[in-house]
Amino acid sequence: MDLNEIGALAKEAETVLRNLGTAKKNEALFAVAQQLIKDSDSLLTANEKDIARGKENGMHQGLLDRLLLTRERIEQMAEGIRQVADLEDPIGEVLSMKQRPNGLMIGKKRVPLGVIGIIYESRPNVTADAFALCFKTGNAVILKGGSDAICSNIAIVKSIQAALEEKQLPKTAIQLIEDTSRETATAFMKLNEYVDVLIPRGGAGLIRAVVANATVPVIETGTGNCHIFVDESADFDMALDIIFNAKTQRIGVCNACVSLVVHEHIIDTFMPLLKERLAEKQVEIRGDEAARHAVSGINAAKEEDWGTEYLDYIISVKTVSGIDEAIAHINRYNTGHSEAIITKDYANAQKFLDEVDAAAVYVNASTRFTDGFEFGFGAEIGISTQKLHARGPMGLEALTSTKYIIYGNGQIR
Amino acid sequence: MDLNEIGALAKEAETVLRNLGTAKKNEALFAVAQQLIKDSDSLLTANEKDIARGKENGMHQGLLDRLLLTRERIEQMAEGIRQVADLEDPIGEVLSMKQRPNGLMIGKKRVPLGVIGIIYESRPNVTADAFALCFKTGNAVILKGGSDAICSNIAIVKSIQAALEEKQLPKTAIQLIEDTSRETATAFMKLNEYVDVLIPRGGAGLIRAVVANATVPVIETGTGNCHIFVDESADFDMALDIIFNAKTQRIGVCNACVSLVVHEHIIDTFMPLLKERLAEKQVEIRGDEAARHAVSGINAAKEEDWGTEYLDYIISVKTVSGIDEAIAHINRYNTGHSEAIITKDYANAQKFLDEVDAAAVYVNASTRFTDGFEFGFGAEIGISTQKLHARGPMGLEALTSTKYIIYGNGQIR
Repeated sequence: MDLNEIGALAKEAETVLRNLGTAKKNEALFAVAQQLIKDSDSLLTANEKDIARGKENGMHQGLLDRLLLTRERIEQMAEGIRQVADLEDPIGEVLSMKQRPNGLMIGKKRVPLGVIGIIYESRPNVTADAFALCFKTGNAVILKGGSDAICSNIAIVKSIQAALEEKQLPKTAIQLIEDTSRETATAFMKLNEYVDVLIPRGGAGLIRAVVANATVPVIETGTGNCHIFVDESADFDMALDIIFNAKTQRIGVCNACVSLVVHEHIIDTFMPLLKERLAEKQVEIRGDEAARHAVSGINAAKEEDWGTEYLDYIISVKTVSGIDEAIAHINRYNTGHSEAIITKDYANAQKFLDEVDAAAVYVNASTRFTDGFEFGFGAEIGISTQKLHARGPMGLEALTSTKYIIYGNGQIR
Repeated sequence: MDLNEIGALAKEAETVLRNLGTAKKNEALFAVAQQLIKDSDSLLTANEKDIARGKENGMHQGLLDRLLLTRERIEQMAEGIRQVADLEDPIGEVLSMKQRPNGLMIGKKRVPLGVIGIIYESRPNVTADAFALCFKTGNAVILKGGSDAICSNIAIVKSIQAALEEKQLPKTAIQLIEDTSRETATAFMKLNEYVDVLIPRGGAGLIRAVVANATVPVIETGTGNCHIFVDESADFDMALDIIFNAKTQRIGVCNACVSLVVHEHIIDTFMPLLKERLAEKQVEIRGDEAARHAVSGINAAKEEDWGTEYLDYIISVKTVSGIDEAIAHINRYNTGHSEAIITKDYANAQKFLDEVDAAAVYVNASTRFTDGFEFGFGAEIGISTQKLHARGPMGLEALTSTKYIIYGNGQIR
């Protein structure tokens, strides 16, 4: 099907979804969850094709694992959809209503964004997940998944559409662009007539390509060059626990710690302890001169290390003269994601919170908490690293807009 | 100066502005207002050059008038800046703070966007106005005005910078790109490293060019193909007053009414009254068949009329069978700006508010109220016709972002 056709069908679906009550939406989400489980056999068969192709193409074990569907994972997918059904529906809330001196009552009401485009890579669970979040907020969604997962994605979308049709709802509430070519992806990014917002979910390369090519408004997500600053007054045990957690609990995630910034007054005492602790997980340390002076057997950090998101068991260490240099270094190299200070000093804690420019700024906690579930949103469509519309973990509200509703009785200017 | 240099200087200024207290910001704004008046002579001399060039180039009277500075207009400019100083400062407000079960305190704090780029056409007052709004919200601003007003803009920026320097504030809080070429404009739209958001202020052509070329996030403003639906039960006097106001009070503005949608049951009785009323201002009416049948001597509307923002004394009339067709027509042709229904019917009023997809939806009032001042924001940087970040009239809040601040005591995942 042609992209314009897909766009027009999404717009049509949008007019129905916009005014669907919460009860109806939830009923449909539960039906979709049930349908996915019912269709497990065909989902698994489709997924086997993707896995076989991946193996043929020499896909890495890690990627194969992300691509793999199992009965348990399908159950998790369905459970994820049920959890979205259980969340509060943000649509329809009137955020404020005021009467103006001329008698006009002006209210601001939460409404769906309209048609959301999502461009993502090889995890098929994103297909079900993104649908649930968009549907709950009254949006139609157009998905463009990677070629690696195309058979799985087609099967999942078909299953969801069957459940929607059963409930007499427009099946075009979810559509998949089956053509996985780069040209079609680029054309999709310019589909301004039909698409209200594009959300890329994937690696830095994908996100860069979307930002560079899209004329549709984009919410940039993802890349995290996250720092932890160990201040002079830090509790070393706390610092080591937090660094160990933020670096090693999961390495491939955007809220993992990539770089340490350490106060020069403690570098000599702290580095040996750090080296010992990170050795438990064979983390490679790349330090500046002062860090290497403080402990032997670590590698030298180059300028490019300060700007690199490793997504690996590697951490860099920068020594600074104090809080001001720490903040300047972080504001220069961070990607606007998550930054933390470990300190006992009240003024430095407040200064760090005020002056570090990032979506989430922490005192004495792991950067790994930057996550929609950890923040209590009950869901997450991604983590925005831009400042427009949404910043940080995006829950259901990030998928909404507002409109002004105005009650008059003949007012003119 | 090179664009990258300008960008880097803006980022530097941003780090100072971000943490400037409200009192300091207001003091600077009052100083800027005073300086502009003090520099009136040089502003007028610079403006004379623009006016002379405009006349040489055969510029229309209307545009020459927009370009013209007078002592009175400089006083208005200064007064506008003082009014912005008097507005409440949105920066620093903590919108919510909650404790999570693990003890983390997670707050959402309002912060500046950072560096704002504004691309605008020939009105020099935008220069001062945009600066005041961006500065009050702690943002650095980079301006790219039109070549028509370049001498005036240079003089205004120089005057503002002098006042900032006097107050020991970074003068690069405001910078003007003096090269008015199209190539530089396009490069500016791709300055992602330094610019957080671009706001185009001007005609449809300018806005289209920015949307098509920018890789920096854009807030789309402006074009308004606004409708008024005259329902079967409408009070004719109210309908005529509102239409007359919305069409003729100012014709060149985006919230003016462009198109009427009329219920078929009243088309025959309403059209003669409408024709008579609009004749007072020589408004040309372009009607569909039913409208032309109802009254003689009006022109025929073509398909393209439904999508045209006239910005002139012209109005189109479409006849519909009822509220559903009215809403479908409006949702097809509107530009997401302002739409109104004139009705006595409660259910139709609510349905119109619910189902029309636009930034501002009115019952029984003129579309001309879509304006930051009329909405009580005390200021306006433009009217957003997109759904991301801000929709409708944008006051100071639209120039802000948020960041999460998190207080922990050693939490790890």
